[in-house]
Amino acid sequence: MKSTDYLAGLRNKDKRIIARAISIIETESAGHEHLLDQIFPHTSNAYRIGITGPPGAGKSTVTNQLAKLITTHGKTVGIIAVDPTSPFTGGALLGDRIRMSDLANNKNVFIRSMASRGSLGGLNEKASDIADVLDSAGYDFIIFETVGVGQSELEIVKTADSTVVIIVPESGDSIQAMKAGLMEIADIFVMNKSDRPGADQAIAALKTMLSFRDHDEKTWIPEIVKTIGTENRGINELLIAIDSHRGFSERTNTLVEKRKERHLQRVRKIVETKLMSEIWTNIFTNFESEISSSSIPVPPYQSAEKLITEYKSHIKAR
Amino acid sequence: MKSTDYLAGLRNKDKRIIARAISIIETESAGHEHLLDQIFPHTSNAYRIGITGPPGAGKSTVTNQLAKLITTHGKTVGIIAVDPTSPFTGGALLGDRIRMSDLANNKNVFIRSMASRGSLGGLNEKASDIADVLDSAGYDFIIFETVGVGQSELEIVKTADSTVVIIVPESGDSIQAMKAGLMEIADIFVMNKSDRPGADQAIAALKTMLSFRDHDEKTWIPEIVKTIGTENRGINELLIAIDSHRGFSERTNTLVEKRKERHLQRVRKIVETKLMSEIWTNIFTNFESEISSSSIPVPPYQSAEKLITEYKSHIKAR
Repeated sequence: MKSTDYLAGLRNKDKRIIARAISIIETESAGHEHLLDQIFPHTSNAYRIGITGPPGAGKSTVTNQLAKLITTHGKTVGIIAVDPTSPFTGGALLGDRIRMSDLANNKNVFIRSMASRGSLGGLNEKASDIADVLDSAGYDFIIFETVGVGQSELEIVKTADSTVVIIVPESGDSIQAMKAGLMEIADIFVMNKSDRPGADQAIAALKTMLSFRDHDEKTWIPEIVKTIGTENRGINELLIAIDSHRGFSERTNTLVEKRKERHLQRVRKIVETKLMSEIWTNIFTNFESEISSSSIPVPPYQSAEKLITEYKSHIKAR
Repeated sequence: MKSTDYLAGLRNKDKRIIARAISIIETESAGHEHLLDQIFPHTSNAYRIGITGPPGAGKSTVTNQLAKLITTHGKTVGIIAVDPTSPFTGGALLGDRIRMSDLANNKNVFIRSMASRGSLGGLNEKASDIADVLDSAGYDFIIFETVGVGQSELEIVKTADSTVVIIVPESGDSIQAMKAGLMEIADIFVMNKSDRPGADQAIAALKTMLSFRDHDEKTWIPEIVKTIGTENRGINELLIAIDSHRGFSERTNTLVEKRKERHLQRVRKIVETKLMSEIWTNIFTNFESEISSSSIPVPPYQSAEKLITEYKSHIKAR
């Protein structure tokens, strides 16, 4: 199938075509770069929401409810759920997703799980590329939902237009959030399970922490929303907070800036990957055998300089 | 101070000189590359142990006891404690380290805390570089201890010669360990707080999970050690397990292979960083302003190809 055919199928929100296009990108099959370049002009229309938080905070439930609410407003949603499943445990942990099965049959919702499978590099880029597919297919909202709070997952939600951090009242949870670097990335805090003891104290503590931050008129001050995900309470307020952050970002031009930065970083990453693979193939393999045979190890920076010089000679010689 | 002077001070285990050398590397001050190249021939003598596990598993306590035990055997230890502290919370969370203060006055122990400060890239490399400083200063053992189990921290402990994963009997903890990718990296599991209910069941479950793995004669089968860190129990068994893994790695040559791989990755990373900063300075700044002024956005892979071509022309022209 040629990528032009994909484009037509994508624009028709054909779920089989969408799934196939995503697979091509996930497995880096032939033509994936061309496909991504082709859909590019049709992107930047979807609004991207990142949802993260400590395990057990209720991320799946809140994501579920939020997606449902969006569809009742007549809008479409793509959900990209990132599971840090290891190769050892296989797909077992994807079971969480089963709770979303009522959404899976909703024609206005597309759900895709991504497993990181311990592959550190590229998960962030892949999630972003998959979001582009859904974006080009015309989904109005894209939600990135992470299972854990690993560094690569943080990177994913950071690329969203609005980032939602879900915490619960249990003591120490907000401290954990700070440790994991969640404080800086949140545009909206959700205090889920807010009927539990300690919710108001935890919110007060959060507000105190946030008040220490410097801000000017271009700085968004994170909103805090109370929810009870399992009872579908506070979800409307969450969507209002997201809209409010979106409005602010558009007004202050930070949305455009953020997206431009995302694009720059993306291109930068592609250049890096391509150049490094070129060096690896042409120069590094020799270096590897040199190291293995040499009895006197060459210091690292000296080695690096030598390799860079070799690479440049290689380019000049062509 | 010239780096030759550092070398002399390092070889004398002068703690002030060691601390200064580490600071130069941490802040990437002038001469840090030369310093690292200079100490390089004096490295590869220390044995590196990585210690990680979920929050609250007792990593600090076990590290503390293990370091003490090593010193009673007449050996020296450098501890590199990696705290994923955010810039927002400052150094407050380093308080954990205070528990180690009795070790801080031990002349055979050197302790250094590193904060990741949200800086994703480079923490792994920095921790490894700092280990090189301690290695060149003649410390027999180097322990990397992480506070959390973020991806960057996993990368750090993975570079160690032996990796210790500490878990506790509480239900779900071993599942969490699996999710976080800890199962694959552990050479030794420590079931800490092993006097709590459920310890033996948790160990049995762990053994079952481990039994599913493929292995041949070059595969180390992880050992499981029971400890009660606060009562200094099981620490001797832990050190024996580490020695046992070390012996196995030396016998099967996997230690040499692992260290060679570590060196290769390190050089590769230096090449990548240097080349990308060169491209950034020479080519990418133009691209950034092009993007800002252009009304028709160029697709990412097309942009990347253009940048690579420009970079190569730039090299050829010189």
